[in-house]
Amino acid sequence: MTQPFTHEILVSWGDCDPAQIVYTGRIPNFCLDAINAFMDAEMGGGWFIQELDHNMGMPFVKMDIDFRAPVTPRHRLACTVRVERLGTKSVTFRVEGHQDGKLCFEGSFTEVFTIADQFKSQEIPGHAREVLEKHLIA
Amino acid sequence: MTQPFTHEILVSWGDCDPAQIVYTGRIPNFCLDAINAFMDAEMGGGWFIQELDHNMGMPFVKMDIDFRAPVTPRHRLACTVRVERLGTKSVTFRVEGHQDGKLCFEGSFTEVFTIADQFKSQEIPGHAREVLEKHLIA
Amino acid sequence: MTQPFTHEILVSWGDCDPAQIVYTGRIPNFCLDAINAFMDAEMGGGWFIQELDHNMGMPFVKMDIDFRAPVTPRHRLACTVRVERLGTKSVTFRVEGHQDGKLCFEGSFTEVFTIADQFKSQEIPGHAREVLEKHLIA
Amino acid sequence: MTQPFTHEILVSWGDCDPAQIVYTGRIPNFCLDAINAFMDAEMGGGWFIQELDHNMGMPFVKMDIDFRAPVTPRHRLACTVRVERLGTKSVTFRVEGHQDGKLCFEGSFTEVFTIADQFKSQEIPGHAREVLEKHLIA
Repeated sequence: MTQPFTHEILVSWGDCDPAQIVYTGRIPNFCLDAINAFMDAEMGGGWFIQELDHNMGMPFVKMDIDFRAPVTPRHRLACTVRVERLGTKSVTFRVEGHQDGKLCFEGSFTEVFTIADQFKSQEIPGHAREVLEKHLIA
Repeated sequence: MTQPFTHEILVSWGDCDPAQIVYTGRIPNFCLDAINAFMDAEMGGGWFIQELDHNMGMPFVKMDIDFRAPVTPRHRLACTVRVERLGTKSVTFRVEGHQDGKLCFEGSFTEVFTIADQFKSQEIPGHAREVLEKHLIA
Repeated sequence: MTQPFTHEILVSWGDCDPAQIVYTGRIPNFCLDAINAFMDAEMGGGWFIQELDHNMGMPFVKMDIDFRAPVTPRHRLACTVRVERLGTKSVTFRVEGHQDGKLCFEGSFTEVFTIADQFKSQEIPGHAREVLEKHLIA
Repeated sequence: MTQPFTHEILVSWGDCDPAQIVYTGRIPNFCLDAINAFMDAEMGGGWFIQELDHNMGMPFVKMDIDFRAPVTPRHRLACTVRVERLGTKSVTFRVEGHQDGKLCFEGSFTEVFTIADQFKSQEIPGHAREVLEKHLIA
């Protein structure tokens, strides 16, 4: 595998709750933003481009996240995105968030592939599979 | 005018920032939620129904909000929605947020009407105008 | 167990993505809103009140969600909240989202209890345990 | 004035609504993110750092935004942040969002300065005024 793709987030005041740390509900959104950024950088476009230009939908069927340490605006948040499992019709992304060298959260996110305008399952199209294989965890 | 439509919001921990009050960026979203709830209750459906079932789009062209007092989770937030100005092709909503009898914010939100699938301006359709007139501030 | 607590959500246009269904990132936030509403209704206050008035923090350590069917603005979203597992220092909530009688998503959310101003783990305080036991799945 | 500060945003699928453009409620949040990024880059820290480390609060009293053209994920969104008006106790930021060379929205955002732990108005502290003056529109 190549070096894991990393998406950097500037955590803001508005992401934090009165405990002065990032609100739990923001973390899944950070993870999704990281996956979308991965696709933008590696696959020629995020979900929007894939759906509208390639008629390829990628609905989520599952997410699970472990929260290891609080996230704060004191450091950049580095989110790595890798492929944990690659099926014929689905992919599971592994997203890890680090701040200042410390693991803050880690999660798995499974998407299936559809023909977008038919809401019908399909095998992973070639242009997507090629990219996902490069980022598969050994 | 009839009694102003009121949309009640349960303000949450996650809406608040480290200053222990609702984050500024949440307020416009509360206002939009209130307008959508107004349309759901009074016009037979929010923006989603209007756009998909009636081919009526309502893009925003302007918003302005004055923040008068902090919003907190200690009280329900009551958002009233009225019509401030009604043109032939646009409407301006007036949204006010009160907590415990105190005005917390007030704002104006202007939308134009479009034929949704043509992205073309249109005069306000009859089913919408009828409702908006009833809620026009005298 | 008593009848499960149900929190009803008016799904909006702004919750939806270009696929005309609720964006994945909104679902965990709906679940958290439901848990907060449960606490507001059953425990005398949501996380804000618990943290500020009772010095009881409830940070999340884990969430996992299965997405079963799309959520749309066509029906109210009914989120039930029950207690799946009750430890001495942690609770796992079970949240299920239904629309029009159909299961749309289900998830588990684990929180630990802390003395808020010390960021120190604590056993579940009595006023919280009493409520949580009533909602424990048999 | 120096070159205006620019904050770049990767617009995502999740920012868009079923009309395939960014949802109105996201735009004020993009503007706030841009102001926070300005402070992070120019003032040694965003609102979080200012509030917690410098005891300087900056609550908003007013925002107004004109929406000029739709925002989409097809281009990076470039948000410029400048100072429109600088009082003794308040600042008005001017935020403009451009995509592909086209103005998409523009808005004004007024914040007052407080001694954070006293919720009391104060004159703009020196370290902040120095930065804001540099970015004042001539």
